[in-house]
Amino acid sequence: MNSDEKSQPVFEKGERASADYFTGNVWVKFLVPKSDIYNCQIANVVFEAGARTNWHTHAGGQILIVIEGAGYYQEKGKPVQLLHKGDVVQISPDLVHWHGAAADSSLTHIAVNTNTEQGVVTWLAKVTDEEYRHVK
Amino acid sequence: MNSDEKSQPVFEKGERASADYFTGNVWVKFLVPKSDIYNCQIANVVFEAGARTNWHTHAGGQILIVIEGAGYYQEKGKPVQLLHKGDVVQISPDLVHWHGAAADSSLTHIAVNTNTEQGVVTWLAKVTDEEYRHVK
Repeated sequence: MNSDEKSQPVFEKGERASADYFTGNVWVKFLVPKSDIYNCQIANVVFEAGARTNWHTHAGGQILIVIEGAGYYQEKGKPVQLLHKGDVVQISPDLVHWHGAAADSSLTHIAVNTNTEQGVVTWLAKVTDEEYRHVK
Repeated sequence: MNSDEKSQPVFEKGERASADYFTGNVWVKFLVPKSDIYNCQIANVVFEAGARTNWHTHAGGQILIVIEGAGYYQEKGKPVQLLHKGDVVQISPDLVHWHGAAADSSLTHIAVNTNTEQGVVTWLAKVTDEEYRHVK
């Protein structure tokens, strides 16, 4: 495999994510649909620079695996964490949090929603521009 | 991010996998240790060209997400499937199977072991050179 092939994204971008639950341009490609056999759901998510999720929770928890770019992860009431390619984030069930791209870089992560028999996601308020600017 | 950074592997190689359960040079880096909270275990696995797992089963099932290179996946008694960057494989609980690199390419996949409260892996016989050559 040559360098050009290696520098191609692992996954195609998928479908545009809903503006109800995301700010900015975000694409979601489902890799494993919500499954009773595997008790999980897996998606690849691409955030354009500045784009992010709403605040939200996962009743069954979530694992993020960053495969390209740079971004942010924040748990409610805590300092923001910087995300880079190769980082892995464990998000406990029912923890209020958001994630997204840095202001000057796109972010691509695989999201593993675990224990989906307990629920997948509960969407909350948007991450405002003020909240987002605050992380820098 | 420039092309050089993009072409770097997402994860470091991790630890050498046991010759008892793998043939050839294989490295395993755990991304999420076996977890009661998430009921899963996640690892990144790098296979050198020609390297492969033994035949094995997962009591709780497994998802493979290929992030680089090319390789093979085979369920007992079925034709081999070719794996390429971006492919996802769903492996049902208790299904006898093996996976590994192509003869002329390395393979890197993320392995999500699901429902680990039911068990992680049961190792079986080696994939012989004859079985491996047979796939080509």
